[in-house]
Amino acid sequence: MKLKAVLLNCTLKRSPAVSNTQALMDIVIGHLQSLDVECETLRVVDYNIPFGVESDLGEGDEWPQILEKILAADILIVGMSIWFGVRCSVAQMVIERLDGTYDSTNDVGQYPMYNKVGGVVVTGNEDGAHACAETTLFNLSHLGFTIPPNADTYWVGDAGPGPSFIDAGGETHPYTLKTAGWMAHNVVHLARILKESPIPPEGNTVPKPAAAATSDMRGREKRMASPVSESA
Amino acid sequence: MKLKAVLLNCTLKRSPAVSNTQALMDIVIGHLQSLDVECETLRVVDYNIPFGVESDLGEGDEWPQILEKILAADILIVGMSIWFGVRCSVAQMVIERLDGTYDSTNDVGQYPMYNKVGGVVVTGNEDGAHACAETTLFNLSHLGFTIPPNADTYWVGDAGPGPSFIDAGGETHPYTLKTAGWMAHNVVHLARILKESPIPPEGNTVPKPAAAATSDMRGREKRMASPVSESA
Amino acid sequence: MKLKAVLLNCTLKRSPAVSNTQALMDIVIGHLQSLDVECETLRVVDYNIPFGVESDLGEGDEWPQILEKILAADILIVGMSIWFGVRCSVAQMVIERLDGTYDSTNDVGQYPMYNKVGGVVVTGNEDGAHACAETTLFNLSHLGFTIPPNADTYWVGDAGPGPSFIDAGGETHPYTLKTAGWMAHNVVHLARILKESPIPPEGNTVPKPAAAATSDMRGREKRMASPVSESA
Amino acid sequence: MKLKAVLLNCTLKRSPAVSNTQALMDIVIGHLQSLDVECETLRVVDYNIPFGVESDLGEGDEWPQILEKILAADILIVGMSIWFGVRCSVAQMVIERLDGTYDSTNDVGQYPMYNKVGGVVVTGNEDGAHACAETTLFNLSHLGFTIPPNADTYWVGDAGPGPSFIDAGGETHPYTLKTAGWMAHNVVHLARILKESPIPPEGNTVPKPAAAATSDMRGREKRMASPVSESA
Repeated sequence: MKLKAVLLNCTLKRSPAVSNTQALMDIVIGHLQSLDVECETLRVVDYNIPFGVESDLGEGDEWPQILEKILAADILIVGMSIWFGVRCSVAQMVIERLDGTYDSTNDVGQYPMYNKVGGVVVTGNEDGAHACAETTLFNLSHLGFTIPPNADTYWVGDAGPGPSFIDAGGETHPYTLKTAGWMAHNVVHLARILKESPIPPEGNTVPKPAAAATSDMRGREKRMASPVSESA
Repeated sequence: MKLKAVLLNCTLKRSPAVSNTQALMDIVIGHLQSLDVECETLRVVDYNIPFGVESDLGEGDEWPQILEKILAADILIVGMSIWFGVRCSVAQMVIERLDGTYDSTNDVGQYPMYNKVGGVVVTGNEDGAHACAETTLFNLSHLGFTIPPNADTYWVGDAGPGPSFIDAGGETHPYTLKTAGWMAHNVVHLARILKESPIPPEGNTVPKPAAAATSDMRGREKRMASPVSESA
Repeated sequence: MKLKAVLLNCTLKRSPAVSNTQALMDIVIGHLQSLDVECETLRVVDYNIPFGVESDLGEGDEWPQILEKILAADILIVGMSIWFGVRCSVAQMVIERLDGTYDSTNDVGQYPMYNKVGGVVVTGNEDGAHACAETTLFNLSHLGFTIPPNADTYWVGDAGPGPSFIDAGGETHPYTLKTAGWMAHNVVHLARILKESPIPPEGNTVPKPAAAATSDMRGREKRMASPVSESA
Repeated sequence: MKLKAVLLNCTLKRSPAVSNTQALMDIVIGHLQSLDVECETLRVVDYNIPFGVESDLGEGDEWPQILEKILAADILIVGMSIWFGVRCSVAQMVIERLDGTYDSTNDVGQYPMYNKVGGVVVTGNEDGAHACAETTLFNLSHLGFTIPPNADTYWVGDAGPGPSFIDAGGETHPYTLKTAGWMAHNVVHLARILKESPIPPEGNTVPKPAAAATSDMRGREKRMASPVSESA
């Protein structure tokens, strides 16, 4: 069965501006396609996404259509640029909106992102890639994603301002090319493995009363809310 | 001479929704006012602020009016909520927009935020305050702000989801009250000291050719860009 | 086949001092044992481990005996305390010593930690658990570990100094108990899945010339060193 | 009056191994000396420093002699290498030992690091300098140090393994040279300003009962412990 990947480009720049992050994501997509994965890329800033932590913020909110694609995919790749040493605001906004998924479960009672695999792509003109990757992969693991080995690829230049990925010839940078390939292969390997052998719903399902309780928790982090009430 | 403080509330929630972060900021404001500081609070999400890294992104961009207030102030306090363990997207967006200030200098050739003092206010239902504060204070120091001792105040509950600042009675939490007072006093002490004895423009001014060069650097981090060209 | 787990307690305190982190690790061990996992716990600070980034630093270095246990295990759990908002020095030292494993591969040419699963346990009297967990899980993923969903458990008190895990009654904290169980179950689920279906050595093996080259790289980070030489 | 600076080199490598971090610290020292600052450098790993969070851990502990020098200085510069994207274990250990200073106050009742100025020097072969700098400067601000604008200097190469500072010719890297100068000048400017106009002991002194209470808090973070007892 063919795997599906959704790739979110969280650049700050709207289309049709050139995105350095997209250039590196395209290399990853090349690998994914050669591994027979169906890929869909979305540039988040081209959509109307209000700030918030619910899955649907009402009229005009275009997040639900992005979320629907993520829910239908086996692999989520979050691409982002570094600003001031950390992940950019659009990537942070995307993670915040994913908080809404704690409200629901998959068919067997786990968080809906269980059995999906996550990876990240980071570009910046210098320093900060580890910070972006570690925060994002950790957040994805909280949401339910599995993180394979070497699940990140990044390019940064040396200390200080300088040219970005495309102008700097990052597309021929051996380390970045190598890690792009490793990341693509490993998210696919894990997605195939989990398709074949899903994580059993044992010791990791969301208690029903908790799920119910979260519906009253608008505007608060909801992960594993009210486990106490489980015994109720 | 009376000091001025600008306080940016970076909550994700638009007015008139109740903001927990504002509740803690109000405690800080109480201290600042008792120290004879003129305070102005802005709730960033109530303004139309596009994503980007320039000081003016054109028609409809309301960042310039916020930046103007910051430039006229002696103290900047950034208030924010924690989401997924790090600072929220609105706070990140504010820092990104401040990147535009690297394009200009104060009267003596330093970055325009020199001789201003920075502080932060953080609230979350649990864990992540250090991460928010450290990233933000560091970014402010890069932009030119001086960071006094104990320049942060925060409230978080214990591990896991739970009530936010107001519901949890954070307004009587001894540690948070103590640090709110320390922070307020120290930003004022430093602002007064720097008003009296500004940081001399010696060894820390922006080379003119570099400043000129940055005008061509839309969409790239500009701090100390092109120092090489200084010798040109 | 019975799974093996190694749990490293990275507390700063030597035996026989009481370790709060151990108290939470013991809860995790209870789950692991109930899932038929053979567990071995080591308190790192009780061993003579010099600072460094090689697998064997010579006479008196007791790291090799710890590394041997990790290499023989299916699951690695790193337990640590928070100091100043981030992971403690002993945990950082352990990760640094693991850098030495980039020098070698498993039987199929992947980094030796491939097909092992990682998790973390964090305790602190307040704030910083996300920072500890995200950095450590990310480092483990770089080394080759797979990170399952919800691979961390932690306890922290509310803002400011206060009692630690044991004195605060953390052992009955619902969120911490819940996440301890989830973490234990998920590392076991993934370890079983990977035992059955290992990550194929396709697109993720270490080029031989690179492996050879790293033997000359004492004192430098070695991950994927010299991929260029692959074409040589 | 002549200013004094203590510079701690937190490299993992004992003398006489060449330290890349020292090479960049030496550039900073050149600036400090030209500004008439008396400099003393210590290579921490050459001393016997046990893990812990007290100022004196008893027989054989050589931290007290380092602490004494810091207490006598106006400026503290912490130099460190990056490992796995964050500050190295020796730097973390140094910060942990500084926790012991929360037990005491200066003559006017503030934490003993008040009116001292902090800065950082970071080197790594790639990525992570912002993380090292932000964590360390924030920790220093908690301890009582003032952080001037642009209080960090760093060198990192581009993405992936590669030569370190010295081999890469970092000593001629324009951005790093520029920031080394800015950092050195700004720590001196602030130290002079605070010498002339110390931060008044108003709203930032340690309540005596709290100071007394911390003597019973071995092994716990002590910042602003027990402010409640102030009213007692």
